[in-house]
Amino acid sequence: MENKELIGIIAGILTTSAYIPQTIKVIKSKSAKDFSWIWLIFMIIGILLWFLYGLMLKSLALIFANGISIMSLLTIAVVKYVYRQS
Amino acid sequence: MENKELIGIIAGILTTSAYIPQTIKVIKSKSAKDFSWIWLIFMIIGILLWFLYGLMLKSLALIFANGISIMSLLTIAVVKYVYRQS
Repeated sequence: MENKELIGIIAGILTTSAYIPQTIKVIKSKSAKDFSWIWLIFMIIGILLWFLYGLMLKSLALIFANGISIMSLLTIAVVKYVYRQS
Repeated sequence: MENKELIGIIAGILTTSAYIPQTIKVIKSKSAKDFSWIWLIFMIIGILLWFLYGLMLKSLALIFANGISIMSLLTIAVVKYVYRQS
């Protein structure tokens, strides 16, 4: 693996794993009130575009990092919607 | 500008601007207690590496987005340190 791809993968691991505690907290507490819908929508669209950009550049790091981030964000959005009444 | 670079720039605008309200809130309230030091350190190192990755790929989108994100995060870290007593 090229040096630059390794740097991208490490960057992806750091910025993606920084979201895991928040995602676990949202699932456990069944509450996502800390996240506004505007923030979630901006981030989901933005990260989908980063994912697309990664595909176009054939960048493993961008595809990997943003693929996982999308799953974290969609999990938060689903919890926020399902438990919106509570 | 190439199509893919435009997609990257739009992705960067969305994911970067999603942090601006939080950064402004931190500056106004002079409090960054919502951000743990671990999260900040993970993100600052991670985004620095994304910035480096962007330089290596000569990707305007990665350089632009992560350059701005670094400034947001460093601002939050400075406020968190300066007002750590309060």
